[in-house]
Amino acid sequence: MPSISTKGKTMPESPIRKLVPYAEAAKKRGVKVYHLNIGQPDIKTPEVALDAIRNYNEKVVQYSHSAGNASYREKLTNYYKTKNIHITSDEIIVTAGASEAILFAIQSIMDPGDEIIIPEPFYANYNGFAINSGVTVHPIKSDIEGSFALPPIAEFEKAVNEKTKAIMVCNPNNPTGYLYSEEELSTLKDIALKHDLYLIADEVYREFVYDGNTHHSVMNLKGLEQHSILIDSVSKRYSACGFRIGCMISKNKEVMSTAMKFAQARLSPPSFGQIASEAALETPQEYFNEVLNEYLDRRNVVVEMINKIPGAFCPNPKGAFYVVARLPIDDSDRFCRWLLEDFNYEKQTVMLAPASGFYSTEGSGKDEVRISYVLNLTDLAASMKVLEEALKVYPGKTN
Amino acid sequence: MPSISTKGKTMPESPIRKLVPYAEAAKKRGVKVYHLNIGQPDIKTPEVALDAIRNYNEKVVQYSHSAGNASYREKLTNYYKTKNIHITSDEIIVTAGASEAILFAIQSIMDPGDEIIIPEPFYANYNGFAINSGVTVHPIKSDIEGSFALPPIAEFEKAVNEKTKAIMVCNPNNPTGYLYSEEELSTLKDIALKHDLYLIADEVYREFVYDGNTHHSVMNLKGLEQHSILIDSVSKRYSACGFRIGCMISKNKEVMSTAMKFAQARLSPPSFGQIASEAALETPQEYFNEVLNEYLDRRNVVVEMINKIPGAFCPNPKGAFYVVARLPIDDSDRFCRWLLEDFNYEKQTVMLAPASGFYSTEGSGKDEVRISYVLNLTDLAASMKVLEEALKVYPGKTN
Repeated sequence: MPSISTKGKTMPESPIRKLVPYAEAAKKRGVKVYHLNIGQPDIKTPEVALDAIRNYNEKVVQYSHSAGNASYREKLTNYYKTKNIHITSDEIIVTAGASEAILFAIQSIMDPGDEIIIPEPFYANYNGFAINSGVTVHPIKSDIEGSFALPPIAEFEKAVNEKTKAIMVCNPNNPTGYLYSEEELSTLKDIALKHDLYLIADEVYREFVYDGNTHHSVMNLKGLEQHSILIDSVSKRYSACGFRIGCMISKNKEVMSTAMKFAQARLSPPSFGQIASEAALETPQEYFNEVLNEYLDRRNVVVEMINKIPGAFCPNPKGAFYVVARLPIDDSDRFCRWLLEDFNYEKQTVMLAPASGFYSTEGSGKDEVRISYVLNLTDLAASMKVLEEALKVYPGKTN
Repeated sequence: MPSISTKGKTMPESPIRKLVPYAEAAKKRGVKVYHLNIGQPDIKTPEVALDAIRNYNEKVVQYSHSAGNASYREKLTNYYKTKNIHITSDEIIVTAGASEAILFAIQSIMDPGDEIIIPEPFYANYNGFAINSGVTVHPIKSDIEGSFALPPIAEFEKAVNEKTKAIMVCNPNNPTGYLYSEEELSTLKDIALKHDLYLIADEVYREFVYDGNTHHSVMNLKGLEQHSILIDSVSKRYSACGFRIGCMISKNKEVMSTAMKFAQARLSPPSFGQIASEAALETPQEYFNEVLNEYLDRRNVVVEMINKIPGAFCPNPKGAFYVVARLPIDDSDRFCRWLLEDFNYEKQTVMLAPASGFYSTEGSGKDEVRISYVLNLTDLAASMKVLEEALKVYPGKTN
């Protein structure tokens, strides 16, 4: 038998996907499963985007420009202007989701054996993209007591070595919902400049910021223009995960011309998704206001209800639509499986993401879960009730 | 300034893209440019596929399954059955074009430093995907005198070493249009089995086979089931390049479960493209008959007219919609640029792909060009006339 690649063997399996068969079995037993495990919002995709698809009238669905349709990139610059991000259309490469943008960024700036510093917990697929590129993730731990704020600068200094090429943050953060402050970004800028590192910011949750706070973009760090790479996506902004449209943005011309070579090799990003994304730029502000209010209400329900559970703790994050909560449990992987396999409350259960999958330090996150608040308020309240009941009887509970 | 990756520096720039500014300048001077340089067909995308897009009625455009929608994969197995390829839906991973399928295949089976044998000339982006994966392409030369038939088995034997993990062919071939015979595939099978290598076949031009010939798939090589990987795409089949939908197929479970890890990391293939591709499976046979007749007429015009040009030679390929022709020129890169920059015949010129970009052996293909017959017969005849006139006055002509 011919062999499998080393990177193929070491690519992690998604910790959530492992639970899918148990969720399916629960449903077969007639148990309603509330899905709080994924970042697939239930929010409607803007009509203006879907209309553009329904009105598609080209005769031949052609390749687009490898960097994305010029008209879309041009209009995108106006969107970013409203976010106080000032770029030109040739500083954008449209990609198949943020996933491809991250791959292009890493592959353009890092060689196999290089290191990237990422505060953990972090989006699990960063690990996959790093392994895919032969790059090592050097995690720095942020913790739940500090609401997952940026680790102190000393931790970064300890992590930097001659192989370090970049720091990556997700802001607002998946999985923690943490919103980095202007000061924290300024700290990251200082480290990046001092050690001549790239600062990659995944800002796909930019629109989801609560309590009157402001999102600060990596693109607004003065003096860091040649070191900054912005990763973006329409998936969450317009509840349009299936479009598979994201982008990579940088003012560093060498980075962009290198990334373009990867973009050209794969020919072009999806044409329909680009058309829908271009139309989505006309989404009325009202849509965002409604969505934001909805998510705010949901966050409040989740945070409040978790904090009422004996032994549980949940920070009150300012962004995205996730929380990482600490529960009185022995092992979140075991607990999440038990919820699906052995538990139901009035024929209902919940599917959560074990937080262990968001840490690269072995043994971390064992008493934490990520909850995506992507369900309506009624279902969300029911889910929290299920969780509360589950924690009364879970055999591995620790309090 | 932070650095660029080695692979980023060594990724080739597309030899065609380099010509784009000259084509644009020619158009600005009022010269009509016939584009014979790319594999973007002018053929209409089937209405049944576009109707599915126009009738889209979901409220939320969600992620699909990472392997692609189950309904699409299920129906795909029926399509393949009509091509005498017998597979199950879990032997398919739907990808963002054949490009992503090739990346998944290479990354699943090959480590950096490994080698892949590819008969040259070959599709230029294979090089990009190999460099992206740290893999070395070991070319074996097929030549125009032999109509680009498979090189003799002895050449393969010479090329195999302890680092060789796979052989890749494109059948029918881009750029040569060559259709591999059953005997040639049988030869490849013997080599693959003898040395325990994967055989990757890019069969995206399966539908385009002329003169009553039959396409033979890698999936029908008995005894090679664990070594065969099929790469496919809807781009050419339905003139749907912008869908960005392809797939990777194998009966080797370990290969597929490894590729699934890469597929999960990038979440899912494009949703709209999958819906259009699923609907495209209902395209009436009449559509394919018409398209095939059209391409056959085009091929005949191109081959006949080139062979009438003094000093030029073009084999008569049995598949795809490309020919590689030998022209009486010093340097195809120079010639293709000269056509755009310095020449016009009655305010018209042609954009061709220099064949040097399809060889990885330095210095090869200097007197060859690839011509894509993706224009209507009138334009194609006009283009060939332009080429004939150009070769009368090109300063670097060699006869």
